[in-house]
Amino acid sequence: MSILEQTIQAITPADSSLRPAIQAHLDDLTKPQGSLGRLEEIAMRYCLATGSANPRLGKLRVCCFAGDHGVAAEGVSAFPREVTPQMVLNMLAGGAAINVFARHAGAELRVVDMGVDYDFGGAPGLVDRKVGRGTANLAAGPAMTRAQAVQALEAGIGLAEEAFREGVSLLGTGEMGIANTTPATALFAAFLGLSPAEITGRGTGVDDRGLQHKTAVIERGLKVNRSALGDPLATLAALGGFEIAGIAGLVLGGAARRVPVVVDGFISTAGALAALRIQPAAADYVFFSHLSEEKGHRFVMNALAERPILDFNMRLGEGTGAALAMTVIAAAVKMYNEMATFHSARVSQKE
Amino acid sequence: MSILEQTIQAITPADSSLRPAIQAHLDDLTKPQGSLGRLEEIAMRYCLATGSANPRLGKLRVCCFAGDHGVAAEGVSAFPREVTPQMVLNMLAGGAAINVFARHAGAELRVVDMGVDYDFGGAPGLVDRKVGRGTANLAAGPAMTRAQAVQALEAGIGLAEEAFREGVSLLGTGEMGIANTTPATALFAAFLGLSPAEITGRGTGVDDRGLQHKTAVIERGLKVNRSALGDPLATLAALGGFEIAGIAGLVLGGAARRVPVVVDGFISTAGALAALRIQPAAADYVFFSHLSEEKGHRFVMNALAERPILDFNMRLGEGTGAALAMTVIAAAVKMYNEMATFHSARVSQKE
Repeated sequence: MSILEQTIQAITPADSSLRPAIQAHLDDLTKPQGSLGRLEEIAMRYCLATGSANPRLGKLRVCCFAGDHGVAAEGVSAFPREVTPQMVLNMLAGGAAINVFARHAGAELRVVDMGVDYDFGGAPGLVDRKVGRGTANLAAGPAMTRAQAVQALEAGIGLAEEAFREGVSLLGTGEMGIANTTPATALFAAFLGLSPAEITGRGTGVDDRGLQHKTAVIERGLKVNRSALGDPLATLAALGGFEIAGIAGLVLGGAARRVPVVVDGFISTAGALAALRIQPAAADYVFFSHLSEEKGHRFVMNALAERPILDFNMRLGEGTGAALAMTVIAAAVKMYNEMATFHSARVSQKE
Repeated sequence: MSILEQTIQAITPADSSLRPAIQAHLDDLTKPQGSLGRLEEIAMRYCLATGSANPRLGKLRVCCFAGDHGVAAEGVSAFPREVTPQMVLNMLAGGAAINVFARHAGAELRVVDMGVDYDFGGAPGLVDRKVGRGTANLAAGPAMTRAQAVQALEAGIGLAEEAFREGVSLLGTGEMGIANTTPATALFAAFLGLSPAEITGRGTGVDDRGLQHKTAVIERGLKVNRSALGDPLATLAALGGFEIAGIAGLVLGGAARRVPVVVDGFISTAGALAALRIQPAAADYVFFSHLSEEKGHRFVMNALAERPILDFNMRLGEGTGAALAMTVIAAAVKMYNEMATFHSARVSQKE
């Protein structure tokens, strides 16, 4: 059995029998019941995911997956393709937004080359999981072979395994890849039956004409790859990207080890959705961090009946939303672990 | 001239001539322009408030003001009055939600007795600014004399001054006071012309009958104090509370020293609104942290055309929302200060 198959088998729904004990503790903390709102829901979800009514908050880690996209040749992005390796180098130097936000969150950052079209020559700090130098053009055929998609998924799984072994208790996803709102949008259309005209957005900033063109490219990609769209893995291979498959793998690997995964924005949601289509039980181990400003994300969150933690009109990716949401999740777990109870603090209850 | 008058005079609108320089720096950071959304707006607001395009992020401090309310005798709260001192003691022992969230945010916490109906006997760690042992019943007459309101305002101003001298660059408000959604609601009705029937909520959890009664008590308070409602200070005295006036003072004192103040939820907003009615120029120094689950807050934020930073369905107070929002504001300032620029990181610009 492959690592992917083993991982899929290892994922089971969270044990909901813990719910009453967790709720009882939440209700015994010195505050009116339910008065911390979503923080209480987050604490509950974290406890259930980790399978404990006495959860540990260990290390936090954001994995930022980078990859290039053949579809960039169609002119679907406002930025040139060379920005992918430039931003990877910027991350290695500590100057990108995700560096700042990961430091702020107290999270480690792993920058992973999943398939950038550049020879980094063993750049220090870079995690090399290169599957290829960019995917093929999804508007002309499958972006990845099935073997490439599995390799990328297993790279993500491996990073989750490594994190688990190293004491990480909360993972975050992130990505860098010029043109990658195009494969993400195509995946949403394929998985959720949403119309590209409705959900295609401006990415890093294409104009009206560029938006029309991008929509047409996505429609073409769906058409040319239609024979693949029945099976989740084949869909991911046909329309995804190396970094998107890496994210899907991280979600699966986290779920298998009961390490919850905080999903960043638009692109990361596409990777997470692929993971949930491959193994629906992974849903109990996922937090959606923020509502992206990228147009389609609202439709996707509605389709999944999810309300992300934050809503800051962000559309940067890299894991920036995941890192910010991690600070909220950490606050929720600390609330659960560190607050006094009515009894211990001798505070009177509601009359 | 009194300390209050001096402080009001010292507050001037933020210098908007800095805006282009701040925006130019934001646009030069290695990200698509505007792609960090509200984080960029928050960084801009922080820079303008502090009067610098090179802002410093110093110490963070939450001031949690506690006070009792004569109107509690009307039976408007689900919790008994003794909970105010019990929760103050819980805060001093480190077991309340605000202790956890302030620690999480890296913020100092000051717990201030503005007028709790209890003799703390010099409890270690408690900041004693007691104006009286609870206000008078606002449903029967003014809650405070004008002199008491000024004393409470000046206590808040003094705490802002002290924070400024001690290197605090971001202040947060919080409060504890059984029954204090009642004075807060009354203040919103008076300052904004909102109807008590529309904005009165359940506080810590009164039932339908309790809600009806609470609404009637607030209507009575507005009627019996109607002669006071022309002047902001007189309105605050008539309908407010010692802790609410302390919050108003902290906002004024922060604004005078260009130390931005993060306003917690429903009660703190009432204090902030009183400050803004006393000195409208203080608005440039205020961040609204979160949308409270307490019913009226949404109406108030709409009336002020404000969109708070977080929306977590919280209704606890204490400064919990302020502390969480401080982590976001700190992230925004670090983003502004620590990210690389396109030039420094040699990243290509948009095509």
